[in-house]
Amino acid sequence: MTFKIICELDYTATAPLTFLLNIRAQKNSRQRIVDETFHLTPSMPHVEHTDHVTGNRFDQITAQIPGLYHIRYEATVENSPELVYRHNLADTEVHEFPLEVLSCLYASRYCQSDRLGNLAAQQFGDCETPLDRVLAVIKWIEEHISYVSGSTDASTSAVDSLVERRGVCRDFAHLGIAMCRAMNIPARYFTAYAHELNPPDFHACFETWIGGRWLLWDATGLASPDGVVHIGTGRDAAEVSVCTSFGNLQLDRQNVSCEALDKDYRKLTVEELQRVFICHT
Amino acid sequence: MTFKIICELDYTATAPLTFLLNIRAQKNSRQRIVDETFHLTPSMPHVEHTDHVTGNRFDQITAQIPGLYHIRYEATVENSPELVYRHNLADTEVHEFPLEVLSCLYASRYCQSDRLGNLAAQQFGDCETPLDRVLAVIKWIEEHISYVSGSTDASTSAVDSLVERRGVCRDFAHLGIAMCRAMNIPARYFTAYAHELNPPDFHACFETWIGGRWLLWDATGLASPDGVVHIGTGRDAAEVSVCTSFGNLQLDRQNVSCEALDKDYRKLTVEELQRVFICHT
Amino acid sequence: MTFKIICELDYTATAPLTFLLNIRAQKNSRQRIVDETFHLTPSMPHVEHTDHVTGNRFDQITAQIPGLYHIRYEATVENSPELVYRHNLADTEVHEFPLEVLSCLYASRYCQSDRLGNLAAQQFGDCETPLDRVLAVIKWIEEHISYVSGSTDASTSAVDSLVERRGVCRDFAHLGIAMCRAMNIPARYFTAYAHELNPPDFHACFETWIGGRWLLWDATGLASPDGVVHIGTGRDAAEVSVCTSFGNLQLDRQNVSCEALDKDYRKLTVEELQRVFICHT
Amino acid sequence: MTFKIICELDYTATAPLTFLLNIRAQKNSRQRIVDETFHLTPSMPHVEHTDHVTGNRFDQITAQIPGLYHIRYEATVENSPELVYRHNLADTEVHEFPLEVLSCLYASRYCQSDRLGNLAAQQFGDCETPLDRVLAVIKWIEEHISYVSGSTDASTSAVDSLVERRGVCRDFAHLGIAMCRAMNIPARYFTAYAHELNPPDFHACFETWIGGRWLLWDATGLASPDGVVHIGTGRDAAEVSVCTSFGNLQLDRQNVSCEALDKDYRKLTVEELQRVFICHT
Repeated sequence: MTFKIICELDYTATAPLTFLLNIRAQKNSRQRIVDETFHLTPSMPHVEHTDHVTGNRFDQITAQIPGLYHIRYEATVENSPELVYRHNLADTEVHEFPLEVLSCLYASRYCQSDRLGNLAAQQFGDCETPLDRVLAVIKWIEEHISYVSGSTDASTSAVDSLVERRGVCRDFAHLGIAMCRAMNIPARYFTAYAHELNPPDFHACFETWIGGRWLLWDATGLASPDGVVHIGTGRDAAEVSVCTSFGNLQLDRQNVSCEALDKDYRKLTVEELQRVFICHT
Repeated sequence: MTFKIICELDYTATAPLTFLLNIRAQKNSRQRIVDETFHLTPSMPHVEHTDHVTGNRFDQITAQIPGLYHIRYEATVENSPELVYRHNLADTEVHEFPLEVLSCLYASRYCQSDRLGNLAAQQFGDCETPLDRVLAVIKWIEEHISYVSGSTDASTSAVDSLVERRGVCRDFAHLGIAMCRAMNIPARYFTAYAHELNPPDFHACFETWIGGRWLLWDATGLASPDGVVHIGTGRDAAEVSVCTSFGNLQLDRQNVSCEALDKDYRKLTVEELQRVFICHT
Repeated sequence: MTFKIICELDYTATAPLTFLLNIRAQKNSRQRIVDETFHLTPSMPHVEHTDHVTGNRFDQITAQIPGLYHIRYEATVENSPELVYRHNLADTEVHEFPLEVLSCLYASRYCQSDRLGNLAAQQFGDCETPLDRVLAVIKWIEEHISYVSGSTDASTSAVDSLVERRGVCRDFAHLGIAMCRAMNIPARYFTAYAHELNPPDFHACFETWIGGRWLLWDATGLASPDGVVHIGTGRDAAEVSVCTSFGNLQLDRQNVSCEALDKDYRKLTVEELQRVFICHT
Repeated sequence: MTFKIICELDYTATAPLTFLLNIRAQKNSRQRIVDETFHLTPSMPHVEHTDHVTGNRFDQITAQIPGLYHIRYEATVENSPELVYRHNLADTEVHEFPLEVLSCLYASRYCQSDRLGNLAAQQFGDCETPLDRVLAVIKWIEEHISYVSGSTDASTSAVDSLVERRGVCRDFAHLGIAMCRAMNIPARYFTAYAHELNPPDFHACFETWIGGRWLLWDATGLASPDGVVHIGTGRDAAEVSVCTSFGNLQLDRQNVSCEALDKDYRKLTVEELQRVFICHT
């Protein structure tokens, strides 16, 4: 599927500073950039980097003078995620995890998986396979956590969402990651543009490593795993901010949109998502 | 029922200090002190106080010289708790709560009931009456929280126990209190000696105000609500320490026992505790 | 001094419910209500209560029908706080604290004094008297905590403010209380109307029990302890909400004002507040 | 310097499981393994891995039968850390940080640097260079945090240590890392064997990236940065456990020692550590 994405950001810098944006679509075998433009106004020193481990693409901008900065990024992106079925998934024992995958088992700033071992065992211990555990986690989150805009902030963690039973996409992802890691299922955070996301915003999902693949999950149900354009991968939100600033930078306005260019595109249904799984990496 | 209680405490004071002990059995219409002795060795200035609101009895001790202090408290206590049945409980609307009971609706140091509204509504919202909600809370705790000695400490809160799914009697009580308050059921902490508690220790339960009475609950199942000798009442453990010291006091040894003198005494069964409820106040 | 206070609250009730307001000025030997009016529109069953321990006055309102409710409370209040000087303060040893004062030594929901013992000893351990410790706490808070509107919420605790170094009046009070209790100085929360408070709002301060009196402190510096009209007393914000609702009640608008009727009234200066202390109780 | 290290671990496995040990000394240009032996009793399937990004060496052990397992690792390791002086350190602006270093700016499970911005600016904002900020952080920690064995556990975070003012080496390192990251100084966790550490144990320090190098710091003062044998690097303790087990594994006994073979070896003094800095990577 081909998607058109637009991202507009307006910032105010009160003093000179450097900041990094992570808003470009990833480039990999499953996600091809057909075209893209990146405009920074006023024009400033600007370097593009790619982190070769995560695939995250950064625009490092030096705002030499205080004032208003406007960024506009547009791209046409063609995705060809792999559709994976239960029978495709290898039975992988823990001792077969590659080392880079093992690092996604550790607790992180917003995912206190080290505290959730007993809860996960109680809740999901009956499940037979890692895939069933993840499906059960998604189902539990859908049934117990309410999506409430503005109910959380940048310091909210998975444990907070578990206790207060509400959050936004960022929190749904953190809770899914924490519960999966608590059951020794490697999991990581995935930021994206999502087709017709409502309200329009950057989106957060999570991937779990099962049977040799990273499968993508959206615990909010607001997007279809096959209807997203991948931006960033990290252990959790601490590692994949849209903007990391070294100095005071104030976000004045943010406008994000993503649309499938194919008019026939439709989101996968809840039932389909029990049988087909999406691999973006 | 009549109980024999013994409490022995050995402390080391490294410098002169004052400390308060809350270890004596309460005296009220339902709990009569047949006899009691309190020995402090070496002998020191020592004043007894009773808090007329809570009934808590304090021994205020001034250790004028550093060294070892030994306290031995023994008492024979006759309890006549009220056995209450469902049909005895009045239907009391919130606006009929006396003011002193309303104060047991507030969140406290270890009971973050303000954070548990959504969870309690999800878990127990189907229950028809306050009594049924409390019975459901007790059942949920029994099914989900493991009693694990040494798994918690003085800073553990109800939210910690909820997340980590384990604790000791103190934590079971805090979680019960927090969940009840989150549903507007006044609840408070109750410390006691408990018949043949294993391991022997001070015990913590909680009371809820339902239909005009404070009913006693033990979410650990280790004691029967009719087999306890009441020591202290407070909002949570922060308010009813065995020992509050104003200076450094180290507990070296603690020995507590409680036995029903009536050989026929037996604990109420789990089934009986669904039908008969105990009022100690 | 005589003050004119006005409080207007607009609520929306989506279903019938009961709620309690704590907005009336206290009546005691130091605070005389010259006149007051309380209007509830539409008119509903409404009972006034006074908690005789704290002096808090509650209006218990039953909203029998869903809809908009408007409350307007006006009063003229004459305060005669005691001006206290260092030499007036008795040297009171901990063992001389009355029991009701001891209860203000315990940790509470937002004041985790049990965790701050080492910090308080390090920071304020050199101070000679309890009064000096409190003055040092106020000074430390003024120097280290920034008043930032909107930076906190109803779940923010003293420890959060200590770590993040910012808050609003509620948080300044909680941090002051927690640090004082950590040094065995009884402390409690004090809600009030405050002369020309900017931005206009209910105000939160704290009292400490020193030398036989409860002295009032405002760690924000936004109000003068002699320029407030006392509403509520409690261990912390959990116990003195403006509104405690048993059901869903949404605050749509709040308008609060307080003015000294005496045109010559001026706030005490920072220097004066090092030498004269205010007792409101 | 050449060090002799010994590590003995006794575990009980109650069921078959896989576990990973991270106890071997790293091999790199500054740390040469002269000889090493690794014995596992009883003998079991056992694979050695090296994470090429971090240099961490893992022994992946499959315990096929329940029972007691004994591991003994011995090695002679020759270290040649670089001694770095203030004038050697380049002035590196944030925008010059390599991407892999930027990842050490993010908050992590035990290092909530995102919460410490105001505190770090207040405390260390006057320092002129990143090096001075780190020296000031080390000094602040030494002056304010007490080393108290057993005072913390695996869930203790930097914020906890900041509030309670005590911890062990793990906590000193986490607090140092969190404060540095809060000032945009990349920092990471460093596990090691340390010469004559008392009490004998694995040791935790931290590195900061300054002027093109990773400099090593020990905020406890218990080891000299030039007297350690490097084991693991990670963002914090969550990523460099001695043992990561996929199943229940109980540590029964741990014995660790490290000695400099050169009899003339002496630890750097506090004064020397203000002028010479150690680079292990």
